[in-house]
Amino acid sequence: MSIVTLLTDSGESDHYVAAIKARIISINPGIRLEDISHKIKPADIAHAAFVLRAVFRDFPKGTVHLVGVDSTGNRGDAYIALQMEDHFFVGCDNGLFGLISDKAQQQLIELNAINSISTTFPERDVFAHAACKLASGVSITNLGKPMPQFRKMIDRQVKATKKQITGNIIRVDSIGNLITNISKETFEILSKGKVYTVQFGGEKFRRIYTQYNQADQGDCFIVFNSLNLLEIGIFKGNASELLGLGYDSTVNIIFEE
Amino acid sequence: MSIVTLLTDSGESDHYVAAIKARIISINPGIRLEDISHKIKPADIAHAAFVLRAVFRDFPKGTVHLVGVDSTGNRGDAYIALQMEDHFFVGCDNGLFGLISDKAQQQLIELNAINSISTTFPERDVFAHAACKLASGVSITNLGKPMPQFRKMIDRQVKATKKQITGNIIRVDSIGNLITNISKETFEILSKGKVYTVQFGGEKFRRIYTQYNQADQGDCFIVFNSLNLLEIGIFKGNASELLGLGYDSTVNIIFEE
Amino acid sequence: MSIVTLLTDSGESDHYVAAIKARIISINPGIRLEDISHKIKPADIAHAAFVLRAVFRDFPKGTVHLVGVDSTGNRGDAYIALQMEDHFFVGCDNGLFGLISDKAQQQLIELNAINSISTTFPERDVFAHAACKLASGVSITNLGKPMPQFRKMIDRQVKATKKQITGNIIRVDSIGNLITNISKETFEILSKGKVYTVQFGGEKFRRIYTQYNQADQGDCFIVFNSLNLLEIGIFKGNASELLGLGYDSTVNIIFEE
Repeated sequence: MSIVTLLTDSGESDHYVAAIKARIISINPGIRLEDISHKIKPADIAHAAFVLRAVFRDFPKGTVHLVGVDSTGNRGDAYIALQMEDHFFVGCDNGLFGLISDKAQQQLIELNAINSISTTFPERDVFAHAACKLASGVSITNLGKPMPQFRKMIDRQVKATKKQITGNIIRVDSIGNLITNISKETFEILSKGKVYTVQFGGEKFRRIYTQYNQADQGDCFIVFNSLNLLEIGIFKGNASELLGLGYDSTVNIIFEE
Repeated sequence: MSIVTLLTDSGESDHYVAAIKARIISINPGIRLEDISHKIKPADIAHAAFVLRAVFRDFPKGTVHLVGVDSTGNRGDAYIALQMEDHFFVGCDNGLFGLISDKAQQQLIELNAINSISTTFPERDVFAHAACKLASGVSITNLGKPMPQFRKMIDRQVKATKKQITGNIIRVDSIGNLITNISKETFEILSKGKVYTVQFGGEKFRRIYTQYNQADQGDCFIVFNSLNLLEIGIFKGNASELLGLGYDSTVNIIFEE
Repeated sequence: MSIVTLLTDSGESDHYVAAIKARIISINPGIRLEDISHKIKPADIAHAAFVLRAVFRDFPKGTVHLVGVDSTGNRGDAYIALQMEDHFFVGCDNGLFGLISDKAQQQLIELNAINSISTTFPERDVFAHAACKLASGVSITNLGKPMPQFRKMIDRQVKATKKQITGNIIRVDSIGNLITNISKETFEILSKGKVYTVQFGGEKFRRIYTQYNQADQGDCFIVFNSLNLLEIGIFKGNASELLGLGYDSTVNIIFEE
């Protein structure tokens, strides 16, 4: 089975997503198409990278991920195909792919470098074709010209010392939960045998739950979520609205000796 | 063919829905996935139950319905799998399943009771696995521990006498039509040979149409819809906004001798 | 392989779309279903026609397009199946199909004319059945009664002279780009060797780009898009909001000798 996933900022009220799918089906009707999301905020690379990083490994190895987010990029951005962690990715070299994995790529190819076509719809006219070839078993090295490196953007880093972890909210999900970049692993290494306080906005909490429903309705909870990232929410409420926090807000964990 | 449907309150701008699908595909790539909706209002059991009740019987018998609505539930809510009307359902025992059928369940199993795992993402880590097993032909009795009964919530009941039927709006659909819990069957039994008046808000109507387009544009219509439930709308308009009615508003049918 | 696409104004928070799909799957589980969009504005024939016209030819010939937009239509509107440009269409004869192609239909059949059923949900009870038959290889002529002509609506026409092309915005897409009905072909015929000015709102531009990213961020661009239609946008911005233009706004191209 060959799977192509689709992640775009195209919305669902236009013909764009259907046009990409139609192209793929027309080339190879045996491909299974799965939507990741088409509700990425327009050109929001951070949003797209969070979602893709959170889910791509859940698909079988060899899955092809077609990414149509900010596909126009900026002048000079190449169209690329890459293999990373045994998955394939096709999209624009706008910095997004540097945010989804800490591993090096296994292969990196510039598409559309040989017999280049000019198009305002690269998802359909370039990415769909490359994704079909990869999903049909064509070697990635046959898709274009090898490139040494794709664009890397500097992502928000957690600052961690023996006294304090300082992180940021990297995603407000659709129900208003606040997902930070503070990992369970970092916390467990630094928190051993120590009393801690989690601080954000004007709030202070001394307990991280293991389940959302350890909070009472309307109360705040803090958990390490299914991505092993610290997540803040209001049980059956919208934490972003109720706490006044959003993308990039600071979250601290203070340790006492 | 084995079908798994998905009904969640996860929205479409995050990784959650794709993560559930990826898990299912990774376990059994032969399963056909069909979305019912991911736009259920967060934790809105009434909304989810209305939608599921309205459509589950339209799928072939044996279909597995994975329900990820208010999946965290409240403390102590079990994860369950049940067979009812020859369909399978997997989800949280938060009261939703009691609202989708008036029949008794054929089988009821508590999931995650043996070799329990702790997770904040039961849709992916518990429900997807159970749904895959059911869709792959594993007997429901092999999925966990039998339970005597799932949680029943008291649903709004229609009051029906020889003089009057009193019901409520149980769903405002996305175009603003108002669907009530007054069934065609109840109406037909009680209305025989009688003049009737349908009352809601300040409005009174003496005719129930058989087609929406018997109304003129901008005019109110009342029909028994495709679910055989009394539905009120404005032809090519938004009845909820224009009439000021919403979920739970009262609708009366008064009979004259 | 047989494909049925779905294009509706039903939204995604109700049971309607799933009910149509469930009916099709129940009749013929071998059919591949592909969503075009369910986010068409309620009863907005112009929106639906734009999307369908833009994408139907990208699907393989023989694809069946089930159109559930304004399906109730007006009193007396027939349910129809037609073959056009080697594609099949099923829906209500409300004028939409006249807007998607300039070619004549190959076949036109009135559905539900023989053994007519009364339903408030024709997408499920009439269109799904007809779409299944067509996708399963049944001849369209076996589906009902031949009709001479479907309803034609008068679409906005471009006015083109040697001195000026006057067109209109026919779609504001989900990111706010403004798509006009001025085709590249018309422009190329009339613009040969001439200096031109594109005018809209209070703006004047003397250059049509070939790529979106020839504009700087926040600047206006004009391109012939992937449909070969003149499109106006703000690079990484919302042109409709920023320029104050919307559906039906006028766009002029003035030629100087």
